[in-house]
Amino acid sequence: MTKSILDYNTVELDKNDNCVIIIDQTLLPARTELIKLSTAKEIWDAIYLLKVRGAPAIGVAAAFGLYVLSVQISDEIRSGSDMQKDSGTNVETAAGADEGTRFYEAFLKQKDYLNSSRPTAVNLSWALNRMDRVCKAALDEGRPLEEVIGVLYKESMDIQQEDIDTCRKIGEYGLSLIKKGYGILTHCNAGQLATSKYGTATAPIYLGLEKGYDLRVYADETRPLLQGARLTSFELQSAGVDVTLICDNMAYSVMKKGLINAVFVGCDRVAANGDTANKIGTGGVATLAKRFNIPFYVCAPTSTIDLDTKCGDDIKIEQRPDTEITEMWYEHRMAPEGVKVYNPAFDVTDNEYITAIITENGIAYPPYSDSLKKLKPHK
Amino acid sequence: MTKSILDYNTVELDKNDNCVIIIDQTLLPARTELIKLSTAKEIWDAIYLLKVRGAPAIGVAAAFGLYVLSVQISDEIRSGSDMQKDSGTNVETAAGADEGTRFYEAFLKQKDYLNSSRPTAVNLSWALNRMDRVCKAALDEGRPLEEVIGVLYKESMDIQQEDIDTCRKIGEYGLSLIKKGYGILTHCNAGQLATSKYGTATAPIYLGLEKGYDLRVYADETRPLLQGARLTSFELQSAGVDVTLICDNMAYSVMKKGLINAVFVGCDRVAANGDTANKIGTGGVATLAKRFNIPFYVCAPTSTIDLDTKCGDDIKIEQRPDTEITEMWYEHRMAPEGVKVYNPAFDVTDNEYITAIITENGIAYPPYSDSLKKLKPHK
Repeated sequence: MTKSILDYNTVELDKNDNCVIIIDQTLLPARTELIKLSTAKEIWDAIYLLKVRGAPAIGVAAAFGLYVLSVQISDEIRSGSDMQKDSGTNVETAAGADEGTRFYEAFLKQKDYLNSSRPTAVNLSWALNRMDRVCKAALDEGRPLEEVIGVLYKESMDIQQEDIDTCRKIGEYGLSLIKKGYGILTHCNAGQLATSKYGTATAPIYLGLEKGYDLRVYADETRPLLQGARLTSFELQSAGVDVTLICDNMAYSVMKKGLINAVFVGCDRVAANGDTANKIGTGGVATLAKRFNIPFYVCAPTSTIDLDTKCGDDIKIEQRPDTEITEMWYEHRMAPEGVKVYNPAFDVTDNEYITAIITENGIAYPPYSDSLKKLKPHK
Repeated sequence: MTKSILDYNTVELDKNDNCVIIIDQTLLPARTELIKLSTAKEIWDAIYLLKVRGAPAIGVAAAFGLYVLSVQISDEIRSGSDMQKDSGTNVETAAGADEGTRFYEAFLKQKDYLNSSRPTAVNLSWALNRMDRVCKAALDEGRPLEEVIGVLYKESMDIQQEDIDTCRKIGEYGLSLIKKGYGILTHCNAGQLATSKYGTATAPIYLGLEKGYDLRVYADETRPLLQGARLTSFELQSAGVDVTLICDNMAYSVMKKGLINAVFVGCDRVAANGDTANKIGTGGVATLAKRFNIPFYVCAPTSTIDLDTKCGDDIKIEQRPDTEITEMWYEHRMAPEGVKVYNPAFDVTDNEYITAIITENGIAYPPYSDSLKKLKPHK
C-alpha cells in the first residue's frame, strides 16, 4: 500500500542525525519530499520560505531546531573549539567564561535568529521562549550541559505531543458545534500539515470523519501561495473527506447558495480582545459569513492567544515578495513587468465577526476580553 | 516608439479579408498576438475560450462575426453552390426556395450557433438580435442580398461605434461621482480590452487620467483566469495609471486600511430589479464595500440591462472547466488529481449592495425597478 500524505509527520526530530526532518510543503501536491535541516540557516529558510508553515508546526519546528542547534553548541564547547564560523553556531564568547555562560549566550543568539524568520505567528516565539525558560532554569541550577541538552530535548518533544493533544481537543470542542451533513468552509491550511496531527481548523472534520458525520468541505484555494489547493484539498482528499476546491472569490457564491453551515479557520495570533490575525483573506470570509448568518469559528491553541497584544491594530503584518503574486508557480509571468504589488501575508478579523474561539481548554464566546483570559493558562 | 496595448483595437472587422481580427487575450501580457477569425467555429471558439471577452467586446465580435458569415452565405448562394459542408455555413435549404429565404435560414443557424458560445452576457444575444432585426427588415422589403449585406455591415459598425460612445459617456458620469486622489478598486477586466475603447469600469479612470485626477487604482487579480493581473493592471499600467495589483482575497485588507474610496465594476447582465451578474467574486467585493461604507458602482451600457429578466435568480450562471482552477497557467498541477471543483464564472450582486448603476444615459439609483426602466431605451 502506498503511503498517504497523512502517514508522514509534518515535523520530526531525528536524534541520531541531530536534524529536523520536514515535508517540503512547497512541493506538494506534486511531490512528497522529506528534507533534513541541520544548520540555523537551513531551519530559518525552511520557515521563511514556508517549506514548513502553519503556526503550530512552525512552533514545533523551531523547538526541534533550537534543540538541534543546542546540541551543536554544546558539542563545540565540550570539544574545546570556538569561533568555528562555518558551523554557524556563533560560539564567540571569551574562552574564559564558564561553559554554561558560553552555551547560553550562543543559545540566545540562535533563538533570536530563528525568531526573526516570521513575525506574525506567535507560536514561533512562544515555543522558543519555552525552550529558553527550561534552558535557563537548568543552567541556573548549575546542571552540566549534557543534562541541559536532555531538558531541551524533553521540552521540544513535549511541545510536539501537546500540539497533538491540543488539536484533538480542539476537534472535540469543534465537533460539538456542528451537525451531521454540514457544509464547512475553510481558508488556507490549518490542517494536519500545519500542525503535528489533526490540524486545528480541520480537527473537527477529521473527528467528524471518524464518527460518520458526512461533512461536505469547501476549501478556498488561498492565493497567492495556494495552501488550500495544494495542501488542504490534498490532505482532506487523502483522508477520504468529501472536499470541493474553490477559488477564494467563490466563497460568496457557495454561501449564497446555502451550501455552507459553518466556517472553521486557524489563526496565527489572537489578541486579548479576540481580534485575530490569520492568512490573508480570512477577514473577508468572516465578513461574508456574517452577512449570510453563518457561524464563523476560529480554532486557536492557547499558545496562539497573546494576551500581551491588546487588539488587532497591534499585530505586525508580514509583507511578502511581489513575485509570489506575479510569477511564482506560473509558466509565464501572469502580470506585466514592473507592476506595483501589495502582498500582505495576513489580515485581522475583528472580534465582532467571530462567533466563537475554540481552544484546547474550551470554547470562548464574546466578550473575548473576559473569556480568553479564563481559558489561557498563565504558564 | 513601440505600440502600447491600447493602440490596438480589441476587436476589428477586416472587410478586405472578410474576417474578424482580435487580440488573443489569453496570451496577454506575455505576448500581444492578433488573430484572424473567418469560420463560425473560429468565432465561437474565440468567445468560448475567452480569446475575446468582456460583455461589450463579445457583442461587437459577435456582430462582426455574423457579418463575416453572412458574406460567406451570400457568396455561396450567389455562386449557386450549396451544401458546402467545409465552409461551415450550412446553406442546406432546398435549392428551389428563393435566395432571401435560403439566406435567412442559414443566417439564423449561424446566429443561434454564435449565441450558444456563452450564456451569461446579454450583449451577445443583444448584438446578434440587432443584426437579425435589420437583416429581416431588409429581406422583408425584398432588397437583394448585396444590399442586405450592406445593411449588416452598417449595423455591426454602428454597434462598435456606439460601444465607444457609450463607454465615454459612462466615463463622464462615473467621473462625476469621484474626487481627485481617490483610491479605486476594480475587479476582473471591464477595461478597454473588454470593450472597443475606454472600457466601462475603467472609463472614469481613463477620463480621470486625462483630467489630472491622480487616482490610485487597486486591481483584483481575479482568479481563476487572472483578467485583473493579466489585463487590467497591464492596460492601466500601459496608460500610465498608478495601479497596484492585489489578490482577490486582499480587497478586505486594502478597504480596512482606508485605501479605497470607491469600487467600479462592469457587468454581464443587469436584471430589471438591479441584481447584477458579473465576474465571480463581484458579490463578495460588494459585501465588503458595504461593510466599510465604500460606494459600489456598476458600470452598465444599457445593452447589458435585461428588463425581461426579473431578478438575479433568473440569470443563468455559466459553469466552467475544473482545469481552469487546478492546472491552467501553472507549471505543475496546483491541486491533487481528481479533486472536486466548483467553478462558476459569475455571481450575482444583490441590488441593495449597489450604490448606483452608471449607464450611457445617466446614473440609476435605487429603487432600480423604476430607475432602470427610465434609462433603458425601448429599441
